[in-house]
Amino acid sequence: MQNESLEDNADMLREFTLSTERTGMINITDRVRETLRESGVNSGTCVVYCPHTTAGITINENADPDVVRDMLFALGKTYPDRPEFRHAEGNSAAHLKASAMGSSATILIHEGRLLLGIWQGVYFCEFDGPRKRHFYVKIAGDQT
Amino acid sequence: MQNESLEDNADMLREFTLSTERTGMINITDRVRETLRESGVNSGTCVVYCPHTTAGITINENADPDVVRDMLFALGKTYPDRPEFRHAEGNSAAHLKASAMGSSATILIHEGRLLLGIWQGVYFCEFDGPRKRHFYVKIAGDQT
Amino acid sequence: MQNESLEDNADMLREFTLSTERTGMINITDRVRETLRESGVNSGTCVVYCPHTTAGITINENADPDVVRDMLFALGKTYPDRPEFRHAEGNSAAHLKASAMGSSATILIHEGRLLLGIWQGVYFCEFDGPRKRHFYVKIAGDQT
Repeated sequence: MQNESLEDNADMLREFTLSTERTGMINITDRVRETLRESGVNSGTCVVYCPHTTAGITINENADPDVVRDMLFALGKTYPDRPEFRHAEGNSAAHLKASAMGSSATILIHEGRLLLGIWQGVYFCEFDGPRKRHFYVKIAGDQT
Repeated sequence: MQNESLEDNADMLREFTLSTERTGMINITDRVRETLRESGVNSGTCVVYCPHTTAGITINENADPDVVRDMLFALGKTYPDRPEFRHAEGNSAAHLKASAMGSSATILIHEGRLLLGIWQGVYFCEFDGPRKRHFYVKIAGDQT
Repeated sequence: MQNESLEDNADMLREFTLSTERTGMINITDRVRETLRESGVNSGTCVVYCPHTTAGITINENADPDVVRDMLFALGKTYPDRPEFRHAEGNSAAHLKASAMGSSATILIHEGRLLLGIWQGVYFCEFDGPRKRHFYVKIAGDQT
């Protein structure tokens, strides 16, 4: 019981790396679930964090890969490269897409599981690859 | 005092359901406040989470309903339906708007109240209704 | 040791004010770091929150100021003023940009430091200034 209680209150931080294509939304839900399982946390909150400025994290459909394809296509239209951009690296559109998706996602934990909707997956969004990237998964248990 | 302390540290998760129109931003601030009140938490953090992929959560103006109307109108222009979309359900634009608004909002709790700005309300954003939807409100108290 | 442990578990909330120009992204990373330092928290989570509806918080590049300039420029193109807008204050585009960037950012804390990427800074985004604005920094330590 002492052990269970300790595990129930454990906080865990894990870092993951991945290699990306030029652009892409990579489903990282399994790695988030794996971290939760290791933590032993039953209820709490999970934060997935991207430490890059031309990549982001979002939650969206996990079933039809055309959704992700359509999203990347449309983000390119909504945040195009513009002749007025001055940033010398030439990737200002990627910075915009990163902020549009956001640098993190927060997910609730209930009865030892991520409280994701049935169609929801967690995505690492690459807007300026190919690169070696990393992201963090933090599990914070409730106090009970 | 023991009780008060317990209540002060309580964590609470509640699920709410709502019926939506085709599109809409529904002010759910009262339900978030109600959950906080029930929890008895004095200081901590609140997460409002949407488990759907064509709906989202955002915080914006609670006073003039024209703001919400203008926002929905402009999101339709910024993320229009596009002939290049391949997702067979035909609602890729709704998926984009969901990620643009985000699947959750985090609100601080101070002295037993949501630390919202005077003009801020919490909105459930429907981009592909009408549907029966749900959302979660999580209250996590500080440790103190 | 008792003290250290207390400090390690301390939760802290601070409010900051700033004066803005018409539009701008103000790097507030130092103020977030300062709050973390004061809290003495070693590991946990930090939330930066904006209580306004025409301003937001985002995380993006801290090095080349042209990135911020390009982002503000492009947000103006993506969310322009539109003749169809009805909100009498005439700042609906600013409300849209605020929700697009989001009202808060969540940052992880590890070994007493913000777990920001090397190029990441935290920005207060003004879309409808000049105004006197404020924002909150909340530090929540792990339980351990």
